[in-house]
Amino acid sequence: MENSDIVYGRNAVEGILNSDRATRINKILISQNIKKDNKVSNIIKLAIDNKIPIQYVPKERLSTITTQVHQGVIAYISPIQYADLDDVLENIKDKEENSLIIMLDGVQDPHNLGAIIRTAKCAGADAVIIPKRNASLVTSTVEKCSAGAVSLIPIVQVTNLNNAIDLLKEHGFWAYAAEADGAESYTSVKYNTNTLFVMGGENQGVSKLTKEKCDLNIKINMKGDFNSLNVSNAASILMFEFLRQQGV
Amino acid sequence: MENSDIVYGRNAVEGILNSDRATRINKILISQNIKKDNKVSNIIKLAIDNKIPIQYVPKERLSTITTQVHQGVIAYISPIQYADLDDVLENIKDKEENSLIIMLDGVQDPHNLGAIIRTAKCAGADAVIIPKRNASLVTSTVEKCSAGAVSLIPIVQVTNLNNAIDLLKEHGFWAYAAEADGAESYTSVKYNTNTLFVMGGENQGVSKLTKEKCDLNIKINMKGDFNSLNVSNAASILMFEFLRQQGV
Repeated sequence: MENSDIVYGRNAVEGILNSDRATRINKILISQNIKKDNKVSNIIKLAIDNKIPIQYVPKERLSTITTQVHQGVIAYISPIQYADLDDVLENIKDKEENSLIIMLDGVQDPHNLGAIIRTAKCAGADAVIIPKRNASLVTSTVEKCSAGAVSLIPIVQVTNLNNAIDLLKEHGFWAYAAEADGAESYTSVKYNTNTLFVMGGENQGVSKLTKEKCDLNIKINMKGDFNSLNVSNAASILMFEFLRQQGV
Repeated sequence: MENSDIVYGRNAVEGILNSDRATRINKILISQNIKKDNKVSNIIKLAIDNKIPIQYVPKERLSTITTQVHQGVIAYISPIQYADLDDVLENIKDKEENSLIIMLDGVQDPHNLGAIIRTAKCAGADAVIIPKRNASLVTSTVEKCSAGAVSLIPIVQVTNLNNAIDLLKEHGFWAYAAEADGAESYTSVKYNTNTLFVMGGENQGVSKLTKEKCDLNIKINMKGDFNSLNVSNAASILMFEFLRQQGV
């Protein structure tokens, strides 16, 4: 994550924790051997109150993140306000047309995340769901690659993707995991319900449990033996096939 | 362009010009007030023989490109061997199925160029055509983003895109320019001939003359008012709609 998304120093981090931007903090790194004075104790308390993960790391690690005086405390802060999945579902419950949501299972590259959010907005998707752990967060690189779309489409961070899939299914979503060896071609599926596309990360694809949680694994047929679509391009192809089938 | 794609110093540049990698040199920068000794004169002669553009620039400019001792001469070299359009056309002339070629009119971002080449290979396209000027060349960043596809699909550099379109038309290609306000939706076109998709650059789209040269301007319908697909995603959507229609 780049410097523009971090806040360092005890006063600065405490200040953000006391502001309405507190919910945008993704995590706080604290030096392992920090002296817990009142300010540090207050930062820890506020972080716990706001359910923000704290990681205790060697002081040297903090100094690799910023060369500025960090006083043993660095907060990662998102440029956007994440949305709540319940709010997204509340907003779409009266829609007459089929809803579209994209879920990303471990996309690491901020360029890909930004491009997917951008395409999702172009496709009129209702939300993009990302996990809280082991994935790219919405950083300023993501914001830039999204051409500003990060502020125009709900982005939901969830702790557990599988629980989110269950919740979406309860709301009429069919869940499709994109998989190189999926059971059916994405073009042979009729997307005539609320639709969730689950995309895997750059390295490992959709995780086993999440694949099993989905209704169907779909593949994008390639021509020839070079089966290596970039995840943002794969997501675009799926989203626009969905749109095509909706008659857009 | 990054350092890994440059060669500097009189001996090194002359060496490449005398090797079979000479055709991979995209251009040579020479210091404006260089002393034209035998070696420099030979470099200039070899560059002219190989039709490699020479740019005379202030010495300071060269020093911003590399901090190494460049002796007033820097060559930009492509990691790949560009293909010849005539060879591509010769190779496809007996194909029973419809051919697919992608032409990029001024794509500047190496990530986009790499992603498009990668998708083109996945889609079984027969070539990617890029212009010699005002566009991203195939650098090592492009090579990386293409996941190695740059070596697996012919990449053609042409001086004049419009002449290339004429040549493709003579070989049965229909040329479609992708345009935000295109006359027809990309999904309503029947791609039942050899197909050329012309994509514009990140900033200005397909140039006016090139658009006019195409048989049809097509648009990708979006949902909502955020009409801003990234060029690599737009190219993916078009290529895979072509594939879908071919029954792949």
